[in-house]
Amino acid sequence: MGNKIKIAVIGGGSSYTPELVEGLIARRETVELRELALVDVEQGREKVETIAALTRRMLAKNGMEAVKVTVHFQPDEAIRGASFVLTQLRVGQLKARAADERLGLKYNLIGQETTGVGGFAKALRTIPVMLNIARKVEALAPEAWIINFTNPAGIVTEAVQRHTKAKIIGLCNVPITMHHMLAQMLDEPFEALRLQFAGLNHMVWVHEVNVRGENRTREVIDKLCNGATMTMNNIKEAPWPAALLRALGAIPCPYHRYFYLTREMLEEEQADAKAGGTRAEQVIKVEDSLFRQYRDPQLDHKPEALRFRGGAFYSQVALELIAAIHNDTGAQLVVNTANLGAIQGLAADAVVETNCLVDATGAKPLAFGALPPAMHALTTQIKTYEQLTIEAAVNGDKRAALLALIVNPLIGDAKLAADLLDEVLILNRDYLRPFI
Amino acid sequence: MGNKIKIAVIGGGSSYTPELVEGLIARRETVELRELALVDVEQGREKVETIAALTRRMLAKNGMEAVKVTVHFQPDEAIRGASFVLTQLRVGQLKARAADERLGLKYNLIGQETTGVGGFAKALRTIPVMLNIARKVEALAPEAWIINFTNPAGIVTEAVQRHTKAKIIGLCNVPITMHHMLAQMLDEPFEALRLQFAGLNHMVWVHEVNVRGENRTREVIDKLCNGATMTMNNIKEAPWPAALLRALGAIPCPYHRYFYLTREMLEEEQADAKAGGTRAEQVIKVEDSLFRQYRDPQLDHKPEALRFRGGAFYSQVALELIAAIHNDTGAQLVVNTANLGAIQGLAADAVVETNCLVDATGAKPLAFGALPPAMHALTTQIKTYEQLTIEAAVNGDKRAALLALIVNPLIGDAKLAADLLDEVLILNRDYLRPFI
Amino acid sequence: MGNKIKIAVIGGGSSYTPELVEGLIARRETVELRELALVDVEQGREKVETIAALTRRMLAKNGMEAVKVTVHFQPDEAIRGASFVLTQLRVGQLKARAADERLGLKYNLIGQETTGVGGFAKALRTIPVMLNIARKVEALAPEAWIINFTNPAGIVTEAVQRHTKAKIIGLCNVPITMHHMLAQMLDEPFEALRLQFAGLNHMVWVHEVNVRGENRTREVIDKLCNGATMTMNNIKEAPWPAALLRALGAIPCPYHRYFYLTREMLEEEQADAKAGGTRAEQVIKVEDSLFRQYRDPQLDHKPEALRFRGGAFYSQVALELIAAIHNDTGAQLVVNTANLGAIQGLAADAVVETNCLVDATGAKPLAFGALPPAMHALTTQIKTYEQLTIEAAVNGDKRAALLALIVNPLIGDAKLAADLLDEVLILNRDYLRPFI
Amino acid sequence: MGNKIKIAVIGGGSSYTPELVEGLIARRETVELRELALVDVEQGREKVETIAALTRRMLAKNGMEAVKVTVHFQPDEAIRGASFVLTQLRVGQLKARAADERLGLKYNLIGQETTGVGGFAKALRTIPVMLNIARKVEALAPEAWIINFTNPAGIVTEAVQRHTKAKIIGLCNVPITMHHMLAQMLDEPFEALRLQFAGLNHMVWVHEVNVRGENRTREVIDKLCNGATMTMNNIKEAPWPAALLRALGAIPCPYHRYFYLTREMLEEEQADAKAGGTRAEQVIKVEDSLFRQYRDPQLDHKPEALRFRGGAFYSQVALELIAAIHNDTGAQLVVNTANLGAIQGLAADAVVETNCLVDATGAKPLAFGALPPAMHALTTQIKTYEQLTIEAAVNGDKRAALLALIVNPLIGDAKLAADLLDEVLILNRDYLRPFI
Repeated sequence: MGNKIKIAVIGGGSSYTPELVEGLIARRETVELRELALVDVEQGREKVETIAALTRRMLAKNGMEAVKVTVHFQPDEAIRGASFVLTQLRVGQLKARAADERLGLKYNLIGQETTGVGGFAKALRTIPVMLNIARKVEALAPEAWIINFTNPAGIVTEAVQRHTKAKIIGLCNVPITMHHMLAQMLDEPFEALRLQFAGLNHMVWVHEVNVRGENRTREVIDKLCNGATMTMNNIKEAPWPAALLRALGAIPCPYHRYFYLTREMLEEEQADAKAGGTRAEQVIKVEDSLFRQYRDPQLDHKPEALRFRGGAFYSQVALELIAAIHNDTGAQLVVNTANLGAIQGLAADAVVETNCLVDATGAKPLAFGALPPAMHALTTQIKTYEQLTIEAAVNGDKRAALLALIVNPLIGDAKLAADLLDEVLILNRDYLRPFI
Repeated sequence: MGNKIKIAVIGGGSSYTPELVEGLIARRETVELRELALVDVEQGREKVETIAALTRRMLAKNGMEAVKVTVHFQPDEAIRGASFVLTQLRVGQLKARAADERLGLKYNLIGQETTGVGGFAKALRTIPVMLNIARKVEALAPEAWIINFTNPAGIVTEAVQRHTKAKIIGLCNVPITMHHMLAQMLDEPFEALRLQFAGLNHMVWVHEVNVRGENRTREVIDKLCNGATMTMNNIKEAPWPAALLRALGAIPCPYHRYFYLTREMLEEEQADAKAGGTRAEQVIKVEDSLFRQYRDPQLDHKPEALRFRGGAFYSQVALELIAAIHNDTGAQLVVNTANLGAIQGLAADAVVETNCLVDATGAKPLAFGALPPAMHALTTQIKTYEQLTIEAAVNGDKRAALLALIVNPLIGDAKLAADLLDEVLILNRDYLRPFI
Repeated sequence: MGNKIKIAVIGGGSSYTPELVEGLIARRETVELRELALVDVEQGREKVETIAALTRRMLAKNGMEAVKVTVHFQPDEAIRGASFVLTQLRVGQLKARAADERLGLKYNLIGQETTGVGGFAKALRTIPVMLNIARKVEALAPEAWIINFTNPAGIVTEAVQRHTKAKIIGLCNVPITMHHMLAQMLDEPFEALRLQFAGLNHMVWVHEVNVRGENRTREVIDKLCNGATMTMNNIKEAPWPAALLRALGAIPCPYHRYFYLTREMLEEEQADAKAGGTRAEQVIKVEDSLFRQYRDPQLDHKPEALRFRGGAFYSQVALELIAAIHNDTGAQLVVNTANLGAIQGLAADAVVETNCLVDATGAKPLAFGALPPAMHALTTQIKTYEQLTIEAAVNGDKRAALLALIVNPLIGDAKLAADLLDEVLILNRDYLRPFI
Repeated sequence: MGNKIKIAVIGGGSSYTPELVEGLIARRETVELRELALVDVEQGREKVETIAALTRRMLAKNGMEAVKVTVHFQPDEAIRGASFVLTQLRVGQLKARAADERLGLKYNLIGQETTGVGGFAKALRTIPVMLNIARKVEALAPEAWIINFTNPAGIVTEAVQRHTKAKIIGLCNVPITMHHMLAQMLDEPFEALRLQFAGLNHMVWVHEVNVRGENRTREVIDKLCNGATMTMNNIKEAPWPAALLRALGAIPCPYHRYFYLTREMLEEEQADAKAGGTRAEQVIKVEDSLFRQYRDPQLDHKPEALRFRGGAFYSQVALELIAAIHNDTGAQLVVNTANLGAIQGLAADAVVETNCLVDATGAKPLAFGALPPAMHALTTQIKTYEQLTIEAAVNGDKRAALLALIVNPLIGDAKLAADLLDEVLILNRDYLRPFI
């Protein structure tokens, strides 16, 4: 079996999995696979078996039928022997996400799944489940790396790192998507761009765009000020105000729109919800249609339609990380890991999203120095919100939960926060045993 | 002349001055006065002369006719030879303050004079004038202490400290008012309470209430949760939500209502504005009535009506500080001065409001340690807003100004910030030469 | 019994106790005493009873016969009901101290009881005993303050603070002695001087000498450069090199001579040892003679000869601290307590020696800011040595012990450190159970 | 001419240059050369012309006669157009180094050229000359990178970085030599080892030895404790005491012997000086013999004897760095550059020696976190010494110079420091104009 590895996927029944499989096929020379173990909950049995069947067809088509594809409804067997455990689970499914969105809108607030009250509710539901999985990895495969995609990815990664000994790195497709877009904007190959990312997950800035030693940040900002857009499938395209970009001197990520353009984003969310439904409600439809395609016994490749789902470059970023660790390459990747002093003013154990060197020892952030003051203030606020949320989720601590919502810039008001907290706890009572 | 001192009052024509004079009379034994030099602008001539006359009558009544009361329309002669320079000026008068309030309300925002867009506009107007005065003190009376009451007091004090070598301490009547109220609430003498204040001006918490070695913080919080109120003349009395107080474990200052109860405060401001006018518009009326009384040549004491003006304990706090420096007492007072590490996570030169030991060498903050996370996040945000505002005011830097408004929790949205900034610059164009 | 308090003295049989009693008599109005409980070990029975008898005679002479003087050979009864527990114990007596000194000299090293290998050995012997007492205070008198004089006072205080919940403040007579000497040098009353101390116990500098608002540090340095001396009984009078004082811009404490003038101090120690014996050997003789006087049933006051023992101002500093806490005065005193950010670059829980405001809530250091670089480096080195020593003493950790000696600037060399450690562990095997 | 680059070598007449030329030949495919500009002082004319001739013969032998080899006695023409400026100069030649060594020995101190009084004297001589060169690079080739080998390399690099805008990276062959030795010890290929270096130049530890994801640090320490040696040509082979290695839990660099085994190193230096002369005196002889060989018109390759000179792997480390920048590779290299928070507790602008990712944007340190306490203390001490030395050299500040020597752990005593400083200033008066 040699150096061939086993990868476990928690939440393997996700519609994203074919994207991952496509990546595994493309990289089969650098990451040789022995087994792909798909784990999901019992009520997702039909989905995960559909995915497993499609996966087998995709592998077979590419001469990889030797790779074992297994399906599990308990994580233990899947984790045992795995070198990597990918976590992409969704506690409460899209239904819970839709409820979060509707809760936000009811209060005239953004209900998006990683920021504001939506991200908060999702974090409370997800952290206990993720800690449970991480503790199994700790016990059954202590050398394995958890590669976490589960949102809110920064919070979830920090919770696992703080409360277990499992090795974990958080991933997001935002940095790589920005990288592709900036390469396109500058008409340069992807590899030629050196981008300096520093911030938090879904709240990261590009501080420098460098091409072969030349700093071209100002040029990019000029282009953006002159109408070039850079956005992602699942975030509305509101162009950045030029004054904001010039004042920042850096390029915000698309999710920054929730913080910098709150009013506009809320109006669009409200309009969308009235028209086609909230994002989750739309995704439910997309998923239905995707699974209809996946079930087709003739289908042996990732269907085009998956790209509307929003996970662009998901497999590129996952496979680059797996390859860098597995082959000890020392590649420079943007991941979520402990700060260790890289960003000044954040604690050593705060999880940040920034450029890291990745090899067999894991991911080490490159020292960045201090964020400019306005970015430091927002980062402190969000990181504090995140840590209070983790404290709330782990201990069922209502005081920490209330403070988390008050610190969150999308909420702030204490009475509003108290009302929201009551509703979140009731709506999610099936998932929030620590609070009972 | 011995050890008798001269005090200069910049903004001596303020309606508050009789309060100060009353204090000087009460403390005549500990702070012996030689001269009181009142400085104001030419267009305030009638007011300052009214105040000077009243002051002379008050002094005479108390056998202090030996104290010289002088009036100046240029600060130089007043500053020369002074031991203390009190600054209580108001650039643009109450009219400018009213305009700030109306600007806020137009955008559905709080327009209060020390927080939000109102505080921002006032800071831009005030900082250049205060720097000018501080540079004169530096040159003409380098040993003198500036005692600053000018709002936003924390920002103004930090601007002077950062950009001049003048010795300055910022003062506010919020801490002493809270002290009086808590003493009353606990039915203990004022002197028996040891309160631990730490935060920023108009954003300070009481972290511990200690009486003769016993920590009674929890008892105070319980009382407040059960309906005891603690508020100030010029801030609306919205009782604190119990859940907030218990989550904080500390007692917020009345101005915290703007941050924690934003929605409610805004509604009340809007209702008030419709009814009796904004706060400034009401104060204009109060002032008119006060000056009518001040002009009465029979009046030889502070009229009762002054207490509606809002400056409770103003003279107590000013005189305690002057006495502590002048008599080298080592008293414990709550003032605004450079942090020097007292509050962890803030820069050494950031001005904070906290307990200080005051003697002839000035004010030294007592080491406090780290603020709890949710308070640290808000403090970082406000301090960053303050420092960006200072940078904007000193350099006429529009980028810093825009970021200041974005970082301010009462604004946040970048488009809203840009619109507000445009209006502030136009409304205040007479005072904002650095921006032109 | 009203507000009259009980004070327990651990190590009550010390020859210093009459000094303390004299202080209690002098301050009887501010600190009213109910009971003085003297605790010592069984083998010191004769001494502690001698002290108790003398104490009773001294109290009687001053009309304080109502104060109960009790003797204990177990601390429990003494601690119960005490408001203050003074610790001035000496594990291994002066014999162990003499052995430390001789060990140092054998290796051409300073063997002084608070620095170098002597201080290290004393810390290892003392910490377990002090932790034991502190845990009793925690259990039997949780509201009591431990006032620690036991050397090395900074290390012992930090050990107790780190490993128990007892309330402790460390005291030393160095700062007050310097204060008296500087007052004399400037021909000013003691109360007129405001001295800014910051550093560690027996390694503290005066950074500013201020008299009524005037900075006179340079004048003091000039005087010292021109031959004025300032030293203490038990430290040799080597005048400071002028170049050193001018480069520091601050006034080192007498114990700094061990670090700055190591060669000279060692030569003198060696010469003394040859002549009259080491310091401990001399003190043994002084003590014998003192106790001979103490036993005189006619003696009812502190004998003059005690001042040769070296504890000048011991009672002044102890009583000032007790009075400040007991009467909630807010006095400014120089004590050893947790840094809390007062000195930049040291941990919040590192015990430092610096100006504090003391009231019923305890001692809070005044924020100092950063030490100049050369002082910061030495302080970091000594504090690291101290913390490694505590770790070694508490856990019996030989690796930490070896590193402690290597980090200590009076040792440094790793082979030398290893040899010394072996000898220390053998010489003190009766006291170092954690290492066995 | 395309992408072919020009490299300037300041101190081109050094006997090391053939080593560099050999490297340039070996890497000609990755770093294509257009011109090699050798710069030296007029009095070194014969030497640099000898080197230039040998260089031309070496290049010709390898088919690289197209590369222009130029000789300069002023740096300007050499710097203009260069992509890299290598600095390997020696102010005062080996004669000055020998004088430093003899000065040390006279006082029973280590006189080695990068630590203690020798490193101090060399820094004072070198910094003004290096700043002069850096300012020329700033003006004439602002895009060029200075690659600094000039000792003391950490101090010199920090001086340039602090006082000019030139881009500089400091290099040393210690890390790469340790890497080769550890690979040999573990019988693994060089590339398989991931070593975590963190510290200062000539004072760096290997904190982790990792091979393909496996932490083998303990194994290496065991081997070293059992007699395996790891040392360099020019440092005496005193095996590390096992207790020290186990207490550190890390692998010190050979130069750490000066700090950890001071007594032994001094004895050996003294014995050597008596026997064959000091290190510099020996090197003078080696150099004479080397130059005799270099002058041989038949010689067209680096002579074997150069390896006795001590610069093992010098060309490997230089060329790897040049290639990483020139080809934008993102290689992980150990260099000297600004900390930026990588090592906790050191300033952002302090130059440290640690693992960096190097690409066309320069070198970025990987976040390391906190050094263990004993290493942090030593590092703080040495870094403070370095910064005081820079201050002394740049401003001719005798107070900073005295403090530098007092802070240096190889000196410490203030009187000794004062005497040494006097002698250093006299001995080097031709080079120390800032002090006059």
